[in-house]
Amino acid sequence: MKWSCLFTIEQDLDLDERAGFEVGGVRIGGKEPIIIAGPCTVESEEQTMSVARAVKAAGVRILRGGAFKPRTSPYSFQGLGEEGLRILKTARDETGLLVQTEVMDTSQIDLVCKYADILQVGTRNMMNYSLLKALGKVGFPVMLKRGFMATVEELLLAAEYITKGGNEQLFVCERGIRSFDDSTRFTLDLTAVPLIKKMSSLPIIIDPSHATGRADLIIPMSLAGLAAGADGVMVEVHPYPKKAMCDGLQSLSLDMFEEFMGKVRSMISFLASQKREE
Amino acid sequence: MKWSCLFTIEQDLDLDERAGFEVGGVRIGGKEPIIIAGPCTVESEEQTMSVARAVKAAGVRILRGGAFKPRTSPYSFQGLGEEGLRILKTARDETGLLVQTEVMDTSQIDLVCKYADILQVGTRNMMNYSLLKALGKVGFPVMLKRGFMATVEELLLAAEYITKGGNEQLFVCERGIRSFDDSTRFTLDLTAVPLIKKMSSLPIIIDPSHATGRADLIIPMSLAGLAAGADGVMVEVHPYPKKAMCDGLQSLSLDMFEEFMGKVRSMISFLASQKREE
Amino acid sequence: MKWSCLFTIEQDLDLDERAGFEVGGVRIGGKEPIIIAGPCTVESEEQTMSVARAVKAAGVRILRGGAFKPRTSPYSFQGLGEEGLRILKTARDETGLLVQTEVMDTSQIDLVCKYADILQVGTRNMMNYSLLKALGKVGFPVMLKRGFMATVEELLLAAEYITKGGNEQLFVCERGIRSFDDSTRFTLDLTAVPLIKKMSSLPIIIDPSHATGRADLIIPMSLAGLAAGADGVMVEVHPYPKKAMCDGLQSLSLDMFEEFMGKVRSMISFLASQKREE
Amino acid sequence: MKWSCLFTIEQDLDLDERAGFEVGGVRIGGKEPIIIAGPCTVESEEQTMSVARAVKAAGVRILRGGAFKPRTSPYSFQGLGEEGLRILKTARDETGLLVQTEVMDTSQIDLVCKYADILQVGTRNMMNYSLLKALGKVGFPVMLKRGFMATVEELLLAAEYITKGGNEQLFVCERGIRSFDDSTRFTLDLTAVPLIKKMSSLPIIIDPSHATGRADLIIPMSLAGLAAGADGVMVEVHPYPKKAMCDGLQSLSLDMFEEFMGKVRSMISFLASQKREE
Repeated sequence: MKWSCLFTIEQDLDLDERAGFEVGGVRIGGKEPIIIAGPCTVESEEQTMSVARAVKAAGVRILRGGAFKPRTSPYSFQGLGEEGLRILKTARDETGLLVQTEVMDTSQIDLVCKYADILQVGTRNMMNYSLLKALGKVGFPVMLKRGFMATVEELLLAAEYITKGGNEQLFVCERGIRSFDDSTRFTLDLTAVPLIKKMSSLPIIIDPSHATGRADLIIPMSLAGLAAGADGVMVEVHPYPKKAMCDGLQSLSLDMFEEFMGKVRSMISFLASQKREE
Repeated sequence: MKWSCLFTIEQDLDLDERAGFEVGGVRIGGKEPIIIAGPCTVESEEQTMSVARAVKAAGVRILRGGAFKPRTSPYSFQGLGEEGLRILKTARDETGLLVQTEVMDTSQIDLVCKYADILQVGTRNMMNYSLLKALGKVGFPVMLKRGFMATVEELLLAAEYITKGGNEQLFVCERGIRSFDDSTRFTLDLTAVPLIKKMSSLPIIIDPSHATGRADLIIPMSLAGLAAGADGVMVEVHPYPKKAMCDGLQSLSLDMFEEFMGKVRSMISFLASQKREE
Repeated sequence: MKWSCLFTIEQDLDLDERAGFEVGGVRIGGKEPIIIAGPCTVESEEQTMSVARAVKAAGVRILRGGAFKPRTSPYSFQGLGEEGLRILKTARDETGLLVQTEVMDTSQIDLVCKYADILQVGTRNMMNYSLLKALGKVGFPVMLKRGFMATVEELLLAAEYITKGGNEQLFVCERGIRSFDDSTRFTLDLTAVPLIKKMSSLPIIIDPSHATGRADLIIPMSLAGLAAGADGVMVEVHPYPKKAMCDGLQSLSLDMFEEFMGKVRSMISFLASQKREE
Repeated sequence: MKWSCLFTIEQDLDLDERAGFEVGGVRIGGKEPIIIAGPCTVESEEQTMSVARAVKAAGVRILRGGAFKPRTSPYSFQGLGEEGLRILKTARDETGLLVQTEVMDTSQIDLVCKYADILQVGTRNMMNYSLLKALGKVGFPVMLKRGFMATVEELLLAAEYITKGGNEQLFVCERGIRSFDDSTRFTLDLTAVPLIKKMSSLPIIIDPSHATGRADLIIPMSLAGLAAGADGVMVEVHPYPKKAMCDGLQSLSLDMFEEFMGKVRSMISFLASQKREE
């Protein structure tokens, strides 16, 4: 069988030839890891603009933010929907940031494509194969999150649903898996990073915010993910984490985000210098 | 908060008052457990009719069969689609069996409703909240399978998405969860049966075929499930399991199905006699 | 390789020839399932005698009770030690019940053998291979609990450590495994029951008290375990569960124990009648 | 309650004051991470000396090697026992390396203490509380491996068994936990590293060899572990991995070990430079 994004055993990929792909001037899966940052949920224009300006000022190029939110309980806040998309568009227009947001269902694809630069498939939809098939036909970059109970192989096969359809602007995201230990919200499976690089041509980033569920663990786990070879880090930032409508405990405040950027930048520079020496 | 299908701690449900609901003359969640049987996948009219006649002759009232199949790999057989639905309709018309089949996406609901009596949400879509919301607005009975990565609480909250929308013709299905042990395909969590009965008004059945992945474990686990209080058992039956296009190892042959029905009927009679004595 | 208690694929065991073994007049693994009951921990002579008399009166033949307790925290009650063993001996002498109690370490074996009829290896010691090897050389029956993190295969290989040493008076106990779902204390893996019967000659019982952690789930799960083919059930009983020093939530009160025995006896009779008909 | 090695919420530990402890001139838990290397199992004097000389030449100070091996099957090689300890002693005498080896049972403690500098408790014995209590009374440093099914809290409580007894020369090791995904042998839980540093005063190292089970993943995961803040890395090295009696797939060859040391040293220098800047 010929895979579209997975390697056969015979392939001998020259890792230096991985080029990734470009979205609005940002290369994903290239030499330099990317940072994606923003609020878990778009709550208001004020909140979103405040975060957008801060992450822009820090040098980030991609803003994340949820308008459609898959929530465990039907009684939890479900996101602002199209109103949230409009707010993201406003942030995009003002700051020049690329916008990444979630699409939950085939029926939402057209709408989300009007506002977003990158479509996100959430962990709970990684095995929503109808959605994946439809995204294979869309001319938009997609970030596919690993299901929190999906094996690495299942993630790669889910990715194949999209690339097989013709959409090769795809990257995946390790965001923690479920285990018996509830010390942290999920168990960040960093070994998936080098493993996926050995098994496929896909760029892979990590999401330590959802994985750990704790703001105070995000910096060490981001540095660890980059050291393991990740192509980027996605983090949640909120101007007032304690007032967040969703996932406040895991959101970086603007101050913590500044510290995060400093340390992450040093690690990225160090890793680049190591590669040059090789 | 007032739940639609979950109990509050204050509620003191008289278990004898659980009535369940009726679909085409079959009561689900009533005094007598139900049997749902049929092939994993509709492969051909011949295969489906052969199973339909056999399960009908054995006294079964509901036929299961997949036309849209969520498969881990995009290169696996994805089901016959509408052609499969038409075959199920033929079996329904000839045998009088009710037909239960999977709907994978909001865009398929109207189509599937033309052919089926009961809509099934598969394990990989238990957290597809767009689909659940849409099913809350449909005047059709729904069977919601527990996600293999979902806690009992998450299953019940997913059920709330449907009942909150106004659709109270809902029952759930325990079909095995993932664990570290791969001795069987999944780990059948029978404790979920009495637990869900304590926490909600929902009927719950079990699916030992997908849970164990082995035909030779289906009879003992079905008897165990009924003894734990399940409202029914769903099993896969295939005229030639070794030739099945999907999940052959876990399908009962027609002979094994006969043995299954005999033992299950005895257990049901015994449990009914116990209840009368109470 | 020739296993001592595991079956090779070639073996064609006539299940009716399983005979089990006898301990002090009680056959374990024979035609009739056994009930083992008693307090989690021996707390005092009064508490132990109260339970011993009640379970004896109900027809139970084996009393369980812990004197050496493996506790997660060093600050939790660690058991009465030899004093607890003496209390168990008193109960044995007065009631004629056989006594089963845990041995945690090779250095305790001689001491425990002075007081007990059956030695128990706890879930946390299933992979304590030094202990297992030593128990292979002891002329005492052993009950080996499945580690809550052990696969069925690992349990059977641990059993081999004992039977290979020459001690064939061995039975195993499914007591719940760890999973991502904390709805119950552990996930009772009842499928292990028919699976172990297919893979080995070992009798297997279940422990729904530790598996579920909830007294109100013990009756349905005991009935389910017997229906799955278990050779027995072990339950915790306490005169005043709310005052128990350990695991009170999962202990049956004396009243609940009476209800338990009535339902369990009916199920055992039903299953025996089914076997006779075959 | 006053813990011996765990922090209370009130404690406000100045992380710079962590000093660790010294064993034979090597500081564990100090400013510089340590490397522990050696064969999984002592197979012969030739094999052990070959690895010992290579790791010594590379600057390593602690040699690991198993003489008593806890194996899942009683038919697998169980280690050379005391003969293996003697070989380790020979390597110690010739190279000046400190020797770390496993003790499986209370009855082996005296013997192992005659030959080793650091006693290791294996993952399968993390809840062998009799062994932990005995090690609390021994004047030897101990490395306690996390059970592959133990929560972080359970690991720390197990550590308390040792420190409470008076032995404060203790460090712990994250070596991978069990999950549903068998892409790698275990799931390396690197988040445990910063978490344990927040919760206790214990040094923590990682063992990527056992966690991943694959030699080609050891370098990226070692770098990731150090970036997450680990106090050291333990790896398996074998002169001829394909001929290893145990765990050959995860052993670094001597060539790979050289590459490993180069990259690990660069990361350690980088991290030290970062700390100085703070």
